Amino acid sequence: MSKLANTVDWKDGKVYLIDQTKIPEKYEIVSYEKWQDVKNAITTMVVRGAPAIGVTAALGMALAVQEAKNFSEFKKMGEEMKTARPTAVNLMWAVDRLVNLAEKNSSDVEKMKKIIIENAVSMIDEDIRINKAIGKYGAEVVPKNARILTHCNAGALACVGYGTALGVIRAAHEQGKVKMVYSDETRPRLQGGKLTAWELVQDEIPVTTISDNMAGYLMNKGEIDFIVVGADRIAANGDIANKIGTYSVAVLAKENKVPFYVAAPFSTIDTKIKSGKEIPIEERSHEEVTHINGQRVIAEGVKIFNPGFDITPAKYISGIITEKGIKNGPFNFSYSRK
Amino acid sequence: MSKLANTVDWKDGKVYLIDQTKIPEKYEIVSYEKWQDVKNAITTMVVRGAPAIGVTAALGMALAVQEAKNFSEFKKMGEEMKTARPTAVNLMWAVDRLVNLAEKNSSDVEKMKKIIIENAVSMIDEDIRINKAIGKYGAEVVPKNARILTHCNAGALACVGYGTALGVIRAAHEQGKVKMVYSDETRPRLQGGKLTAWELVQDEIPVTTISDNMAGYLMNKGEIDFIVVGADRIAANGDIANKIGTYSVAVLAKENKVPFYVAAPFSTIDTKIKSGKEIPIEERSHEEVTHINGQRVIAEGVKIFNPGFDITPAKYISGIITEKGIKNGPFNFSYSRK
Repeated sequence: MSKLANTVDWKDGKVYLIDQTKIPEKYEIVSYEKWQDVKNAITTMVVRGAPAIGVTAALGMALAVQEAKNFSEFKKMGEEMKTARPTAVNLMWAVDRLVNLAEKNSSDVEKMKKIIIENAVSMIDEDIRINKAIGKYGAEVVPKNARILTHCNAGALACVGYGTALGVIRAAHEQGKVKMVYSDETRPRLQGGKLTAWELVQDEIPVTTISDNMAGYLMNKGEIDFIVVGADRIAANGDIANKIGTYSVAVLAKENKVPFYVAAPFSTIDTKIKSGKEIPIEERSHEEVTHINGQRVIAEGVKIFNPGFDITPAKYISGIITEKGIKNGPFNFSYSRK
Repeated sequence: MSKLANTVDWKDGKVYLIDQTKIPEKYEIVSYEKWQDVKNAITTMVVRGAPAIGVTAALGMALAVQEAKNFSEFKKMGEEMKTARPTAVNLMWAVDRLVNLAEKNSSDVEKMKKIIIENAVSMIDEDIRINKAIGKYGAEVVPKNARILTHCNAGALACVGYGTALGVIRAAHEQGKVKMVYSDETRPRLQGGKLTAWELVQDEIPVTTISDNMAGYLMNKGEIDFIVVGADRIAANGDIANKIGTYSVAVLAKENKVPFYVAAPFSTIDTKIKSGKEIPIEERSHEEVTHINGQRVIAEGVKIFNPGFDITPAKYISGIITEKGIKNGPFNFSYSRK
C-alpha cells in the first residue's frame, strides 16, 4: 500500500491535511481545530483536487457543528464554507449533504451533532473505497508492460488517498503491469511535475516527467500504450471537463491510436449538463503563466490567456471508469437518472 | 520596420550580438574583437537560432582571417569554430563556404583576407533579404484579421533580423492582417514566452502568450485562423524537424482544420535526407525541464525525458514557405537537385 498518509484525515477531533503548497519541497502534515481555518486551507489550496476538497469541507463541518447552537447556525456556517472555493462542485455537494442530514435531525441538537460528525468522518473511507473500486476496474484494461501517460494530478493528493487516474495506475502496478508512468508536467501550475511525480516516487512507481508538448512525440514514436486522466465534471453525453491540456492529449491519442480513459467517481457525472459546451471554463490568474515559484519567466508587456480547464468531446474517450465499472461510448448518462 | 538592432552585426571590424541569455530581463548588445570570443558566444547561447548562428560564425571567421598567416591556419580556425555547437548545420555550412572560398584565393593572402571579410559581411544582408522574401510570400496566404499561432522563436532573434515564421507575421502585420499572435511559451526553455513575446512587444505587434497545452483548446474554440512555425531541417519528402511540440501543434491543426505552414530558408531543405525518420533527435540536459531560471520546479527523484526537437510528417503541412515561394504538398524536394 501507499507510504503516504491520507491527504485528508480526522483524528481525536482534529482535521489533518498534507500541505500541498509545500510539495515537492517539503512533506508536512498540518492540523486544524477551527472550522474557519479548514475553510481557509481550502481557499489557499493547502488542499486541492475535487474529491479531497469535498471531504475536507465535510470534516470542517464536523468541527463547525460542535460550535453550532442549533441547526440554523450550522446552516449559516455551511453557507460560509461553500464560499471557500466557488467553483468546486464537490465542496457544495459535501456541505449540502451534511446540512440536509442536520435538518432532518435538528429537533435533537446533541443527536444532530453526533450524526453529522459520524457522517462526515465516514466520507474518508467512502472516498478510498470508491477509488479502490475505480482502480480495480481500470486495471483490467491496462495492458501488460504498460507505458502509461497521465496529465495533471488525479492522484492520492487529489482525493483522501489512492487516487482516481493514479488509482488505476496503482492497481495496475500492484498487478505488475506498469513499465513506466509518464507525467505531463502540466503547465501552468505544474501539478504533474510537482504532485504526480512526487507521489509516484514516494510509492516507488517508475515515473518520468515530460513537458506537456513532448507527449505527442512519445505517442508518435509508439512509446505510450495507455492514457488515463481524471475529470472535474462529466456531461450526460460523455464530454468531460478536466485540467487544461487534456483535450490536446486526447486528440493526439486518437491520431496515434492510443487508448484514452477517464477515471472519476460516479458523482462527477452531472446529468443535468447535456454536453461539454454547457460547462463554463474558469479563466485563472495571469501570474500562474507569467511567474513560476514567484519568479517572472515570461516577457513583460505581453497579454496572457489562462483557461484552467478544457473540454474533451466524448468521441475521443475510449472509456469512463467509475466505481460502478467501465462505460464505453457512445455515452448517454442521462438515462442513468431513471 | 523593426525597432530592434540586428541580432548579429558587423561594424568597424567588430562583431555585435544581442545577448539572448539576458532577454527578456535586459536588452543588451555585446561586441567581440576576437574570433575565439565569438565561438564562445555561440557555445554559451548568447546567440541561438540556426540562421543567426550561421552568420555569427561567418563573422567570427572574418575576425579569424585577420589573424591567420595563411590558408592552412585559417582552415584550422574554421575547424575549431565548427565545434562551437556540434548540431547546428548552418554553422558548418557558413564556415565551409568561407574556407572553400579562402582555398580558391590562398595564393595571395592579403586578397584572401579581403574576400573572406567581404563575403562574411555580405551574409548579413543576404539573411535579411531571404527573410523578407519569405515574409512576402507567406503574407499572401495569411487571412484578414488573422489570429495566428506560432511555436518557439523563429523570429528576428533567430536570424539577423525580421525572422522566418515571425517574418511572415511581420509582413502580414505590415498589411494590417494580424489581429493577434498567440505564442506558445515553448517549454522547457520558454523561447516562445521569453523571445517571441518580447520581440513582438518591441515591434508593437499584439501578442498573447499561452502554455503549450492551451493551443489545442484555442483551435477547438475556433480562435486560431493560421499557424506558422520555423524548421531546423526539412527532409526531401517534406517532413520537418523543429522545436519539440511542433508535431502536437500540427496534429491539433489538422484535427481542427487550421492551415499549418512552415517558414524557413531554402537552405534548410536537406535533399540528402529522404524522410524525417532519418533525422536524429538530440536529447538535451534534464535541468532544462527540472529547473527554471536556476530554481528547481519538478519533484526530486523523478526521471526526465527531454528531446529538443520532434518530427512533423509532411501530411500535416499545408505549405512550406521559402524565399523562392510557397510549395504545397505532396513534397518531393529531391527533384530540386537536378
